[in-house]
Amino acid sequence: MSNEFRVTYLLTCGPNEDAATKAADLALEQTVELPRTCLTPEVAREVAGSVEAVEPLGDGRWRAVVAYRETTVGDDVLQFVNLLFGNISLQGGIRVTDAEVPPRVRDRCGGPRYGIRGIRELCGIVDRRPLLCVATKPLGLAPGELADVCHAFAAGGIDIVKDDHGLADQEMAPFAARVRRCQAAVEAANARSGGTALYFPHISASGADLGARLELARSLGCKGVLLSPLLLGLDTVREVAATSGLAILAHPALAGAFFARSHGIAPDVLLGRLFRLVGSDGVIYPNVGGRFPFTRATCDAINARLREPWGEIRPAFPVPAGGIDIARVPHWIGEYGTDTMFLIGASLYAHRDLQRATERLVEAVRERCAPTA
Amino acid sequence: MSNEFRVTYLLTCGPNEDAATKAADLALEQTVELPRTCLTPEVAREVAGSVEAVEPLGDGRWRAVVAYRETTVGDDVLQFVNLLFGNISLQGGIRVTDAEVPPRVRDRCGGPRYGIRGIRELCGIVDRRPLLCVATKPLGLAPGELADVCHAFAAGGIDIVKDDHGLADQEMAPFAARVRRCQAAVEAANARSGGTALYFPHISASGADLGARLELARSLGCKGVLLSPLLLGLDTVREVAATSGLAILAHPALAGAFFARSHGIAPDVLLGRLFRLVGSDGVIYPNVGGRFPFTRATCDAINARLREPWGEIRPAFPVPAGGIDIARVPHWIGEYGTDTMFLIGASLYAHRDLQRATERLVEAVRERCAPTA
Repeated sequence: MSNEFRVTYLLTCGPNEDAATKAADLALEQTVELPRTCLTPEVAREVAGSVEAVEPLGDGRWRAVVAYRETTVGDDVLQFVNLLFGNISLQGGIRVTDAEVPPRVRDRCGGPRYGIRGIRELCGIVDRRPLLCVATKPLGLAPGELADVCHAFAAGGIDIVKDDHGLADQEMAPFAARVRRCQAAVEAANARSGGTALYFPHISASGADLGARLELARSLGCKGVLLSPLLLGLDTVREVAATSGLAILAHPALAGAFFARSHGIAPDVLLGRLFRLVGSDGVIYPNVGGRFPFTRATCDAINARLREPWGEIRPAFPVPAGGIDIARVPHWIGEYGTDTMFLIGASLYAHRDLQRATERLVEAVRERCAPTA
Repeated sequence: MSNEFRVTYLLTCGPNEDAATKAADLALEQTVELPRTCLTPEVAREVAGSVEAVEPLGDGRWRAVVAYRETTVGDDVLQFVNLLFGNISLQGGIRVTDAEVPPRVRDRCGGPRYGIRGIRELCGIVDRRPLLCVATKPLGLAPGELADVCHAFAAGGIDIVKDDHGLADQEMAPFAARVRRCQAAVEAANARSGGTALYFPHISASGADLGARLELARSLGCKGVLLSPLLLGLDTVREVAATSGLAILAHPALAGAFFARSHGIAPDVLLGRLFRLVGSDGVIYPNVGGRFPFTRATCDAINARLREPWGEIRPAFPVPAGGIDIARVPHWIGEYGTDTMFLIGASLYAHRDLQRATERLVEAVRERCAPTA
């Protein structure tokens, strides 16, 4: 039926578990939270999730598809996530591997306000090369020292300098002082070089503080911010995207809690679909081969979800990170394509002269992407 | 040192992993996010986490204690959670088993505004018996039908009727209509019986919608609300506690993602300490023996964390739920003590006459708690 959406689960069953029962139970748990015997026939038919398929995959694993009514969610993204994994998070052996998004949730969230094209325009890089992003760090530096780091990166030709996500509002670098100095440093570097580097501060606050920090960032000339959707809440990100006018780079803090092999939400669904849904213009994830254990297949799946056609929802930049060596960036461009934003960290900081190291990286990327005659 | 706080981890190491290295790496990952070689001596000393102990527990498991500077967090609860588990969530074999809360975070959050004593006063139950809570459900009923359910529970003598956490703002029971009808039904039952039952609506929205729904609930006479801290974001709960004047019952939706055996945050730390920290007056968790796999030891640990002395932070009600049989409530009172709120669901709904079944439950609880002569 057209007013249903489907969620696909990988079920892992213990020796005493029956996959069909497990699927039927979760379809009730995530909607009516009552045994079927306590329901009126109408609620059982119109509200409870409906199991459409339970197929064996071998080794006690099953693929189950459950159809849910769009009316059980309305236009509320938190209720959508709640229905996806709220209560069953507390059980075991259930992994969400695919999830259609109800049209009303999709339309209310609206996805990226900039998306790949919009971010390219902000950065003035519309040609076919990937974008380069760095984090200003470490926590512990004073605002002026962080600003010096920003200046070196911007002068070296980086596209986006973001705050490290551990930078909040600590006394060593209070939010207001840090953002003022870092934004000014990037603007000064741009003025000298003719570049268009952007600075995205990290915002880790809700309610009144969130509004005040967004307003300050905007008033200082920032075009975007770094947010951690699982710390702030996905609905907060939705609201920032809808109301702030700022581009959003999303950080995966806490996301790994959902990535157990047999229980959770698949990384491409959480980081690729849900983060994009609520308005992330770019989504940071730990690249294969760095200091986090994502596989190549996981990275490819995230990239695909972020870029795939999805009605009027704009595609978002995949932002592989977490230990990308500058020497390997040309390699990864070949693997992931040019509609990628590479977030480089420690391998730049290993160099004494940050600006020179950045220049060499930018040069290597330009060379790799130059049109061949 | 007095300006440090300690986090304890259970590390599970693979055959090629060294526990001391793993502890040292996570202490950097969660603070400066750079290798030690990229740090100035001052930042390495003053900002990076400092490993204080790594002790073998056998079977490749280790207990590690890391001391962090309070200045790396400031008063920001999201940065505190970020430091606890943000980036390392994306690794494996790291479980947070204990975490001191920096005093500035504790003081800014402030904990429960009502706590066990305040909720007892709201309910008019200051004598030594546990509180009884039920959920109005299922999703799919119209506001008037949900209100009838509320009325039956309130007339039967229940203390708190909360929305099922799947009730958001769906067209079958829009938020405003539902809250108006349910609150009125509970008030009508109270007026007839002389009772003091309370109705707590579920609020699943951020930003402008959150404020509007809180205001509506308050204006209709509700004294508390149901919130899902991991959906809304912990800082949103902090703000509701600080500004709304409403009591907060916290739901564990999504929490199970953190409860893998060897990776995540221990349930007593997440539900017991962090949920209490941000202002939950009661915390719902899945009781042992129900339809979720918590052990008795986990339940005891959550109960202890919610009630333990903690400076000026008030104790919060443990709210065991998830398949508590009405017949077993007297048993659980003996096990968990009277400073408990029991959330009863399906085993009440299995009865045709909700009011009568509730009356019998309340009677059994009173009898169990009557002073013996």
